[in-house]
Amino acid sequence: MDNIRLSSCDIQTMEKRQKVQLINSLPGFKSANLIGTTDKDGNENLAIVSSVIHLGSSPALLGFILRPDTVERHTYTNIQQTEQYTINAVSEEFYQRAHQTSARYPKEVSEFNETGLTPFYDNHFDAPFVLESPIKIGLRLVEIIPIRSNGTHMIIGEIERVILPKYALRKDGYINIESLDLMTLSGLDNYHVTQSVGRLSYAKPEKPIVPLDIDGNTFFIKE
Amino acid sequence: MDNIRLSSCDIQTMEKRQKVQLINSLPGFKSANLIGTTDKDGNENLAIVSSVIHLGSSPALLGFILRPDTVERHTYTNIQQTEQYTINAVSEEFYQRAHQTSARYPKEVSEFNETGLTPFYDNHFDAPFVLESPIKIGLRLVEIIPIRSNGTHMIIGEIERVILPKYALRKDGYINIESLDLMTLSGLDNYHVTQSVGRLSYAKPEKPIVPLDIDGNTFFIKE
Repeated sequence: MDNIRLSSCDIQTMEKRQKVQLINSLPGFKSANLIGTTDKDGNENLAIVSSVIHLGSSPALLGFILRPDTVERHTYTNIQQTEQYTINAVSEEFYQRAHQTSARYPKEVSEFNETGLTPFYDNHFDAPFVLESPIKIGLRLVEIIPIRSNGTHMIIGEIERVILPKYALRKDGYINIESLDLMTLSGLDNYHVTQSVGRLSYAKPEKPIVPLDIDGNTFFIKE
Repeated sequence: MDNIRLSSCDIQTMEKRQKVQLINSLPGFKSANLIGTTDKDGNENLAIVSSVIHLGSSPALLGFILRPDTVERHTYTNIQQTEQYTINAVSEEFYQRAHQTSARYPKEVSEFNETGLTPFYDNHFDAPFVLESPIKIGLRLVEIIPIRSNGTHMIIGEIERVILPKYALRKDGYINIESLDLMTLSGLDNYHVTQSVGRLSYAKPEKPIVPLDIDGNTFFIKE
């Protein structure tokens, strides 16, 4: 296998769009989620992000990165104003419409209207969910962390509600996201469906890993 | 489709392991990467993480989350001491060995030895890469950001070198990570291979998205 080695100098001197593609490809597969917000007057905004990560379960916290100097500035301002937002998983059914939300629309334009996605309001929660999304998460802003190294921000929210199809939630708490046709993203623009090769048991020293079924059970019970 | 709605109270009162599975499933598909470090005496450590994200391309920055109170504390201490680490993509060939690194080994034990993965040292870089990994990234620590909400830390590094197979790097800078059999992870323990449904063009208002080939070109050239 013929390898290529890129130094920091090689990377710094790459053509800008090439560099953006390269560095965006390096983390590996990413989640695809739509962030739903409104400004203080109720004007809706919807933006695709690929940086949502798990931060902790108690309290239940998710984080994601925003670049306030780009198309994401409306999302950033809205979250600052209202302190509420939604995270909506992108599935195969509407991933092209989700990708379209990354276009640079003026502030007064709703990405819901432009892409044909449907805003959905759940009881007593002000931010819009995406009706088409199989996993809808409502969050309350907890912390905005400025990242000095490059002027981006990490938005941290606590999960206030989750709406998802009953059949996808397994007994042990795992959500079978593959059964919901969730997409994964690589680089800036490549979308993929997935095929599970199986769950694995909790790793312990001196104990071999065993495969688990989708409910987290071992296949064979030893006496 | 029968939906289930979980309130923040439902989540808070869930059995602990169930809650951990649920919240870890909510962000969607994640990357699977191994972090390679040594302590100041050169003792090696290797830990799987699912939180590596792209932060920016100029400078080329990647971030990930560490929980210093868990098995990840050796990685955390080593990065603080040496300010160097590697990120190595997990592929189908060795994902079970990668998962095994999450076991709680004593500090003096090298996860390389325990899992049969091979440390690889590249010229003038002190942290070990994983020889079996198709994408090897060497980073220099830039910033450790404490996340007050739950005591975790975000580790930010600048990319100093990248080693990858030549054929996977496309002309426009995109890395065809699917051709390298990279895995994606859901929840805590479900590993998946992928199938691309295609790259999409850069989104612009009033312009329909078009599919692109793996090199980022449109399929038909209009005159």
